[in-house]
Amino acid sequence: MKFLHTADWHIGKKLNGFDLLEQQNHVFKQLLQIAKEEEVDGIIIAGDLYDRGLPSVDAVETLNQMFIELNLKETFPIFAIAGNHDSGERLGTGSEWYQYSNFYLKTNLLEATKPIELADTQVFLLPYFEPFEARQLFQDEKIKTIQQGVTRLVEEMKKEMKPDKQHLLVTHFFVAGGQKTDSETKVTVGGLDAISLDLLAESFDYVALGHLHSKQALSHSRVKYSGSLLKYSVSEVSDEKGVWIVSLEDKQVTTTFRKVEPLADLQQITASFQELMSKEYYEQIKRDNYLAISLTDTKVIPNVMTELRKIYPHIIQLDRAYGRDCRENEASQMSQKLQELDPLELFTTYFKQITEDELTEEQVNWLKESLAMTQAARREQV
Amino acid sequence: MKFLHTADWHIGKKLNGFDLLEQQNHVFKQLLQIAKEEEVDGIIIAGDLYDRGLPSVDAVETLNQMFIELNLKETFPIFAIAGNHDSGERLGTGSEWYQYSNFYLKTNLLEATKPIELADTQVFLLPYFEPFEARQLFQDEKIKTIQQGVTRLVEEMKKEMKPDKQHLLVTHFFVAGGQKTDSETKVTVGGLDAISLDLLAESFDYVALGHLHSKQALSHSRVKYSGSLLKYSVSEVSDEKGVWIVSLEDKQVTTTFRKVEPLADLQQITASFQELMSKEYYEQIKRDNYLAISLTDTKVIPNVMTELRKIYPHIIQLDRAYGRDCRENEASQMSQKLQELDPLELFTTYFKQITEDELTEEQVNWLKESLAMTQAARREQV
Repeated sequence: MKFLHTADWHIGKKLNGFDLLEQQNHVFKQLLQIAKEEEVDGIIIAGDLYDRGLPSVDAVETLNQMFIELNLKETFPIFAIAGNHDSGERLGTGSEWYQYSNFYLKTNLLEATKPIELADTQVFLLPYFEPFEARQLFQDEKIKTIQQGVTRLVEEMKKEMKPDKQHLLVTHFFVAGGQKTDSETKVTVGGLDAISLDLLAESFDYVALGHLHSKQALSHSRVKYSGSLLKYSVSEVSDEKGVWIVSLEDKQVTTTFRKVEPLADLQQITASFQELMSKEYYEQIKRDNYLAISLTDTKVIPNVMTELRKIYPHIIQLDRAYGRDCRENEASQMSQKLQELDPLELFTTYFKQITEDELTEEQVNWLKESLAMTQAARREQV
Repeated sequence: MKFLHTADWHIGKKLNGFDLLEQQNHVFKQLLQIAKEEEVDGIIIAGDLYDRGLPSVDAVETLNQMFIELNLKETFPIFAIAGNHDSGERLGTGSEWYQYSNFYLKTNLLEATKPIELADTQVFLLPYFEPFEARQLFQDEKIKTIQQGVTRLVEEMKKEMKPDKQHLLVTHFFVAGGQKTDSETKVTVGGLDAISLDLLAESFDYVALGHLHSKQALSHSRVKYSGSLLKYSVSEVSDEKGVWIVSLEDKQVTTTFRKVEPLADLQQITASFQELMSKEYYEQIKRDNYLAISLTDTKVIPNVMTELRKIYPHIIQLDRAYGRDCRENEASQMSQKLQELDPLELFTTYFKQITEDELTEEQVNWLKESLAMTQAARREQV
């Protein structure tokens, strides 16, 4: 059996306000192409299909269209689960009908321990859940953590396992890497308790994980994160994005990583403002990329973001590589000083800076009256 | 062929803040029972499945469960469309898979003119649409109204009609009754242009309408509103709620109305406050009903709503059958007079009423100062 393992699509996600639907469609098409080339027997999507529980209409239409392409047009079986970013109830609507075309979408714990059989493989779909859900399901007050919940669920799954079949788990949690310590269940990433790698590695032939966005987050031959299809934060800047092609034959697993290329990459640049604004510089870089810019300048640069955006439309972060110099500290001190001025002094200073003129005596009096009235009125309101 | 025709479920609707999901489930169960008793060949739901485009998670789960009952458990084919209260995009998600089990849900104009064939009947599903959608579909700038859009769509449907088949239309609009006047297209109900009854009656053997909540809204043997399953406003208080059982044999239509009974009815009561609060009175009425109360009293009744709610938990409207008497009119005149007082007089009057004492001269001066400052500050803000 050959599967394509992907996760964390986050359809509808915006990167610092920039809509990514076009980007997401672009990498999806590559995924579809890879699935066809590799002639996989199924597509695994390990949670976080949407970026949020209540996705926009555009996001809903986009994901639905992707499912239509994969499952109805290209007839790939799909094995998908809800992640912590999904609303299980909303995502799961209609999933009872999806099964007619071998699209298995599991969004709650009910029957999560019953596998789907595909030829010689049993696929277990365990969506993201909160400890209370496992507590309710098993009527067991002792289940307080995700690790305890997963342990109990895996016990149930084992009862369903046929020895002559291969066993594959799809789930969406933070898996703590290998160290058998008590403390690992206390680690949380993205608000989730960790579950232990050993439990999963011992129980299944392959575990297709979602949640962490980097495939490097865990290093194990049979328990893997696929990572996201796009770089969704600056911390992922050096990630290689793509999907795992997982072959399971006689309980032997081989995995190959197939890369996908973004339409616009997320890139980190360190340069001076002057360099960035020079044609020789910007002509050699992909200006449409999502850029995290680190300025080497230490001086104040007026309207720096506005100026940079004229050249680079998709700046998602701007900071200083070496901090700011003394003159800026002076400006900062000035700013501090301004905060200490009373409103009358503040306005007088501002008027002088802008008009290069002094207030007349009459103007000062008007100002005093207005301020007195405003302050009195504000006192009334408090 | 035998169909059950229903519409305007408005799942998730609240009646003056009261959640109706339990009520909706109650009548749904009766609908299901009727469908089984009548052994219908299909269930028609003519739009407004949800009450709003972005329904709550509870509403989503409730409707999904109803579909599961009807279509997956009881294997009734479903023919449904989106109404003006539905978001076509959200409601339509997954509908491509529904067809595997003969659940046909149409939420946009694409392919709305292609019928679904069920034995000797062609069912056309025309969801609610805005004129611009028909204009875009046909690339015809002349389509400005719903009537023009429907006319064009019906032309296309006719091309698909097989003469030996019966033709059934499901749609969701205001249908203007029979008078062949130019003005009828100008009538709007619930924000929708009207479409002409004649166009529909001439073109189809049966037309299953949604939108108006009373089955009495239109009187025609083959073009019918089913009305809603529950009374959703006081104007529906005397409606009989239920579903049509429609038999189509050799292009002959017979219809029977099957009633459903609400768990709690919507009821209008006219009585005095004293009657309403007396045990002999309230013990003989169903106090859990949704009540629109018309008080015969004309005098002021302190805390009237609070008092009534102690007995009647579901008051959705409260008014006076005969208006209010002179003393109340005096109060009303006083209220009018108060609105004409300037803030200083108003406060002086209020102070006197509450403390039964006059303001001191010093207090009056403080008041004047404060008011002057506040008014000045407000002028500044305008």
